[in-house]
Amino acid sequence: MNEATVLTEWARLLMRSLADAGISDVVLSPGSRSTPYLIAALRESRFRCHDAIDERAAAFFALGQARWTSRPSLVLCTSGTAAAHYYPAIVEASLARVPLVVVTADRPFELQDCAASQTIDQTKMYGHYVRLFLETGMPDSAPEALHALQRMAAQSVFAAHWPDPGPVHLNVRARKPLEPQAPRTESERELARALRSMRPAPAVSVPRVRPEAAAIGAAVQQCREARAGLLVCGPLPIDASGARAALLDLAEATQFPLLAEVTSQLRLMNADAARAPALCDAFDRVLASKPFREAHAPDLIVQIGGTPTSGAWERYSSAHRRTPRIVLAEHGWTDASNAASTMLFGAIAETAAAMADGLRGTPPAASGAWTKDFVDASREAWIAVDAEIREEVLGPLTERGAVRTVLERLRPGSVLMLANSLPIRHVESLARTGMADVAVACQRGANGIDGQMAGALGTAMASNRPTTLLVGDIGFLHDLNSLMLAMRATVPVVLVVLNNGGGRIFERLPIATEAHVHGVTPEELAHVTTPHALEFGQAARMFGLAYRCVESARDLDDALSKAYAHPACTVIECRTPRPRKDGS
Amino acid sequence: MNEATVLTEWARLLMRSLADAGISDVVLSPGSRSTPYLIAALRESRFRCHDAIDERAAAFFALGQARWTSRPSLVLCTSGTAAAHYYPAIVEASLARVPLVVVTADRPFELQDCAASQTIDQTKMYGHYVRLFLETGMPDSAPEALHALQRMAAQSVFAAHWPDPGPVHLNVRARKPLEPQAPRTESERELARALRSMRPAPAVSVPRVRPEAAAIGAAVQQCREARAGLLVCGPLPIDASGARAALLDLAEATQFPLLAEVTSQLRLMNADAARAPALCDAFDRVLASKPFREAHAPDLIVQIGGTPTSGAWERYSSAHRRTPRIVLAEHGWTDASNAASTMLFGAIAETAAAMADGLRGTPPAASGAWTKDFVDASREAWIAVDAEIREEVLGPLTERGAVRTVLERLRPGSVLMLANSLPIRHVESLARTGMADVAVACQRGANGIDGQMAGALGTAMASNRPTTLLVGDIGFLHDLNSLMLAMRATVPVVLVVLNNGGGRIFERLPIATEAHVHGVTPEELAHVTTPHALEFGQAARMFGLAYRCVESARDLDDALSKAYAHPACTVIECRTPRPRKDGS
Repeated sequence: MNEATVLTEWARLLMRSLADAGISDVVLSPGSRSTPYLIAALRESRFRCHDAIDERAAAFFALGQARWTSRPSLVLCTSGTAAAHYYPAIVEASLARVPLVVVTADRPFELQDCAASQTIDQTKMYGHYVRLFLETGMPDSAPEALHALQRMAAQSVFAAHWPDPGPVHLNVRARKPLEPQAPRTESERELARALRSMRPAPAVSVPRVRPEAAAIGAAVQQCREARAGLLVCGPLPIDASGARAALLDLAEATQFPLLAEVTSQLRLMNADAARAPALCDAFDRVLASKPFREAHAPDLIVQIGGTPTSGAWERYSSAHRRTPRIVLAEHGWTDASNAASTMLFGAIAETAAAMADGLRGTPPAASGAWTKDFVDASREAWIAVDAEIREEVLGPLTERGAVRTVLERLRPGSVLMLANSLPIRHVESLARTGMADVAVACQRGANGIDGQMAGALGTAMASNRPTTLLVGDIGFLHDLNSLMLAMRATVPVVLVVLNNGGGRIFERLPIATEAHVHGVTPEELAHVTTPHALEFGQAARMFGLAYRCVESARDLDDALSKAYAHPACTVIECRTPRPRKDGS
Repeated sequence: MNEATVLTEWARLLMRSLADAGISDVVLSPGSRSTPYLIAALRESRFRCHDAIDERAAAFFALGQARWTSRPSLVLCTSGTAAAHYYPAIVEASLARVPLVVVTADRPFELQDCAASQTIDQTKMYGHYVRLFLETGMPDSAPEALHALQRMAAQSVFAAHWPDPGPVHLNVRARKPLEPQAPRTESERELARALRSMRPAPAVSVPRVRPEAAAIGAAVQQCREARAGLLVCGPLPIDASGARAALLDLAEATQFPLLAEVTSQLRLMNADAARAPALCDAFDRVLASKPFREAHAPDLIVQIGGTPTSGAWERYSSAHRRTPRIVLAEHGWTDASNAASTMLFGAIAETAAAMADGLRGTPPAASGAWTKDFVDASREAWIAVDAEIREEVLGPLTERGAVRTVLERLRPGSVLMLANSLPIRHVESLARTGMADVAVACQRGANGIDGQMAGALGTAMASNRPTTLLVGDIGFLHDLNSLMLAMRATVPVVLVVLNNGGGRIFERLPIATEAHVHGVTPEELAHVTTPHALEFGQAARMFGLAYRCVESARDLDDALSKAYAHPACTVIECRTPRPRKDGS
């Protein structure tokens, strides 16, 4: 049998089976060895295919899609170093528990380890960062091999979901010729017919995981007895609708102050957060106050979702390490303070709902004064924030002023992606509950500043909703390559870049604020803060994107209106001054 | 003892010891966790420090430096996904046998596996692609730990050189506070004094490796008896001065035709190549001729250096798999055709010299007619090439015309870097021996199109010589981020981009030339050739680089003159038409 025909049919079966298993978005990067698989992907009618020259951007783009769809996207690349560019996004997918299916084309076994061109050892090349590595072997017309290929497709998608969502690596091979080849002999036609009549890849459903009833009972009992409990919510997935309602129920049932950070989907996703009786959404500011901290020691902490972003929380949390702490963990051991007394593994929605159910009907012991203190402090904090910001938005554009303006102009039902480093912290300190009705995307697996534009574009294209990214200048420069993906946007994608001329987050650290104490020279400091005088208009225009540079809140306002009316990508560069030498 | 002081002294000792071991260039990427190590690197007077925001570009830049210096550069990054961006360059370093020392800052052990921010498992994260992984553990003032740290520094540099040059990974840790801290107590001052009085890291020399005398003797005997032998040279390192002379001696002693590709340093590095008696430098074209191939079957092949780039050679080589073949391998099993009859491991220079010595004095059996056929065919091929090119350079700029113009204008003693995909193939087919006197850099480990601008910039800055890169548009776009590194160039760095609007190499493949045969639609083909209408002036200007767009050989000529007179980076975009629809 003609080997080219077998390859063509093999690639077709793989892509068909991946589609059977639920893949819908495919991100293709160019290359020669991947040709048969690329053509097969293009010909699978259930796939939406996207191109990305840079595999690094491709994988972050796929992550952005999966954040919206909760399904893995497939990335496909050629052999060689191409595959290594997926690694940063694979690490992020692993830590953030985002499903991803990586398919790397490889050369045949005979070209391994003999210095053949573009041939590297791709076996397990992502090490412990993938949930599953599968080698399909060479295309093979034996029925055993074909059935296994179908199983591997289903298995990859399943392993990207369960038991711990994340990246999966499938290594596929091809010998030249790589061009698709229609069956020409009778036996080849028979193979093609046999493949077409194969049943779909096995259907697999992702099991639901919930804690034991006894563990729930014990947690309920602790909540019931606590007089000074706290509910703190870190990042939760966009698709946390079930969890959101359950968490609000839990807050209501416990009457604990609810310290929900902006990425928890409890502050900006919709107005029903307002029904939480004890909202302390300014907790990052509230807990920064020493008198408040000293007067408020909790007797129980219930922690939900990813590690909270707030630095003030981190310090408060560490100081109260001896306080009983129940961590509701869906995946991974989410206890960065090493302070848990109980780890409660299970789907957040189900665990929280079960706890709320258990508490229902019993009047909680929670002290009204305790809870009121948090709520009042939060309200006062927002008044102070509002006053500060009112002043700031009148003068030259500040970062906080820009962020506040963006928050106030967000379109209902749209997506807001928060880049790491300063943007997410600014938003945390400025986004009052109900200020907007948006899904919040973020990259809080490893919290890198990489691939964030690609991620926002992926979410925009998967959701088909207006999407706004708040990103710093270093994040923008690090991910510059991904602007090429922005050329294809068909919904408003607004990349708001806070350009303050360098990595200003480092200026908040003691190395900068107390440089003289540590004997750090200005020259040394420059290697940390990486100052630059770059502007981003030319990069945007190179890729045909709309661009505005703004230096006042009013201009930003106007730029945002135009950007949301433009069904494509706009880069808005907010030029804010570097801080004065005399302090931060 | 104050932990911050221990950290400061620990980081200082590490950097001092790495300098003792021979590191001179350090590429720093910004981040918080790496601060103590970054400050220590800046304070090590023997280091030259460079900044790179994007770790991917940083590592390729370091590779470019090492290609010139033959010593590992050190790359240093913060914890988290930052480290994953080094991976593509690590893979390339591994396959190309370029030394590299990767130092990744990490968080303390207590923050592992608990969802702490920017904390990933960095242990062995580069898998089988590093020669050595070392975990230093937490900073530690115990003398045992300090002596081991010094040993690990020496060991890293040694393992980057021997027995198989390549990348090494050193994972270092720090707990907050991260700022440098001068000793304050008596015991701290004592520690600092003790460290200052430690002797340098152990001196290690890299052993020389040469084949057994008996193996040399057997190879000599084979050469002596061959009537139709061939010497073929693939890529050799820039620092191949010893090898170059020895190979020319070997060619002289055997009187075999010398098929030296342009990256072998035998064609363009200096005029003494002209003394080779039997030069067949147009072998890519000569072997493309079927009548020539059919009339010329070798009875011995001696293959040297990396896998040759020439496609015609690859086909000829595979067809003559049964011919005895001696492969002179310095590192790795360099036999992509699986055709070796003898693998001769050892330093190329010494092996070739020993073989030439063995042959000296004995009249070789090589047939004069055989050798003359290759030399004559090569001479004729160049006459044909010259005639074609003379026509081409008169009309609108073609890729070959542009490449030829660049080759003719290269400054003696400068560096030419050839990007993979089309540029290296064009140069192979156009660069006649002696046409220029330059060192040729390339990235022929995994032959990726990634990181090539970063690599050229690294070589330029390490060599302090004018450096020219010939790169395609897809390569330019893939490595766009590295333009930021070009801002710092202080010698002429000329990035010549052949912009034909897409990955034109794919248009040479059957999938494009015979699209109708394979039933490939134009839409499908576009995903392979990734056409675009981008221009690169704005990207260059964003980073303050000089820029010229040229559409004729005369303009290119003028642009090159200006670029070589400008001690900084110039981007020259050669706009060449996409091939006509009716064929390539």
